[in-house]
Amino acid sequence: VTILGVGLLGASVARAMKKRSLCLHVTGHGRNEDNLKRAQSLAFIDSYELDPAAACQDADLVVLATPIEMFTGLMEKIAGSLKQGAVLIDVGSVKGSLYRDIVRLTPQGVSFVGCHPIAGGERSGIDASDEDLFEGALCIITDETDSPALGKAEYLWKRLGSSLEYMGADEHDRVYALVSHFPHLAAFALVNTVGEGNGDALRFAGPGFMDTTRIAMSSPELWKNIALMNRDHVVELVDRYIKQLESFASCLRDNDGERLEDLMEKARALRSSINGR
Amino acid sequence: VTILGVGLLGASVARAMKKRSLCLHVTGHGRNEDNLKRAQSLAFIDSYELDPAAACQDADLVVLATPIEMFTGLMEKIAGSLKQGAVLIDVGSVKGSLYRDIVRLTPQGVSFVGCHPIAGGERSGIDASDEDLFEGALCIITDETDSPALGKAEYLWKRLGSSLEYMGADEHDRVYALVSHFPHLAAFALVNTVGEGNGDALRFAGPGFMDTTRIAMSSPELWKNIALMNRDHVVELVDRYIKQLESFASCLRDNDGERLEDLMEKARALRSSINGR
Repeated sequence: VTILGVGLLGASVARAMKKRSLCLHVTGHGRNEDNLKRAQSLAFIDSYELDPAAACQDADLVVLATPIEMFTGLMEKIAGSLKQGAVLIDVGSVKGSLYRDIVRLTPQGVSFVGCHPIAGGERSGIDASDEDLFEGALCIITDETDSPALGKAEYLWKRLGSSLEYMGADEHDRVYALVSHFPHLAAFALVNTVGEGNGDALRFAGPGFMDTTRIAMSSPELWKNIALMNRDHVVELVDRYIKQLESFASCLRDNDGERLEDLMEKARALRSSINGR
Repeated sequence: VTILGVGLLGASVARAMKKRSLCLHVTGHGRNEDNLKRAQSLAFIDSYELDPAAACQDADLVVLATPIEMFTGLMEKIAGSLKQGAVLIDVGSVKGSLYRDIVRLTPQGVSFVGCHPIAGGERSGIDASDEDLFEGALCIITDETDSPALGKAEYLWKRLGSSLEYMGADEHDRVYALVSHFPHLAAFALVNTVGEGNGDALRFAGPGFMDTTRIAMSSPELWKNIALMNRDHVVELVDRYIKQLESFASCLRDNDGERLEDLMEKARALRSSINGR
């Protein structure tokens, strides 16, 4: 198994597979040699390679787990060294055209299956990795290719404890802009709004504010790239959110308590309907 | 002790005082007799009165714990029946001009201390009440009156387990618009935005979305009134939030990853600085 990008998700996949005896040898590749050395000393990986092509040479399974904006460049580097019959999966949060680029760059005889495990919180890096990260989590399979490796990818995620859902790459990006990519942007913007108002006021924040803004502690590098790579959907949602906020503000300006309560009740009912699933 | 409004906070104050033997008899008053009967049968209160003036007649401590928009009307009704030497406190989330109205309507010989316990989550009503709700919580005292009852109010909240902070009524409203009232509005609006996009997508929401929108399950009746009674501050913040969101959207439109990451990093640093306090 070769893990390209030994961070939160890459290290967790490696550790989860090792724990469940699903692999014999894990090779790691990444930009930061110190991080790779550390992952090796912690036995998250067995060896590492700084050259991605060399890292993939004998792998039966290759996992694309770097920041998503590096996927295309990596594919160009590793395409020639992927073994015949190898299975390639990614764990990226954006699919869409990126998914199609990977499909296009996947050589004959290698099978690619797009995967998005819905796991991991605002923490990143190998210290946040967890051998049980995927237990009870959802994993989205964006299978548009009828890849022969689909069964293998399904087997892997199920053994790691995940349940599977299937959707096309574009549908995936529309759905995850709604429930994840846009809400992250909203949380970052909310913290900045409150911070600009009066940074000192933050010490009076209660558990509600803490929950609402927890995801604003997520990695800016990661979320910048997710937002940019799914920007059409995200921008559309920000525009719609601004319209919603303007509706709320106009209720306040007009002192229209009835309409304001209706808007809040609509949200309360919707949010409550998915609580405690 | 008389509790005006036997809901989450009113019932919790009553139960917390009883548990700590801080009172001999608790009289409850409210609009809903069934609720009062239930509170009595659960021994949260010892008796109840449907007439607020009668409820306050012999009370040493009167707690204003109804929805905030009823405070002024209640004060007009009870002013004549408050005992000389009685202490009056409120537990409302908005102070400002409402605080000054209560001060103005408080008769000679009665002392009012404005209080805002920062406790309770998205649940409301007596079933969500808790005799330890105020343990470890913050309570804001908006003491602008040098009330002789200040020491008594401080003693009460400390005995209930709270730590105290002091600020003026207007400062209170500015601070809580920032860390609570405006974030609630933002969360309600966010759920509506996602729901309008595709209600079905909500089933793919992960823990980040759940945290971010938890406060959108709060009582619309309560939060409508809080937002309206603090509307100048809240509207200003919604306007500023819209400007922040427009900055984020323009980074996406311009494909300006560097500026986008700067905005996110600013939020991450600010939010992380108050984490785990």
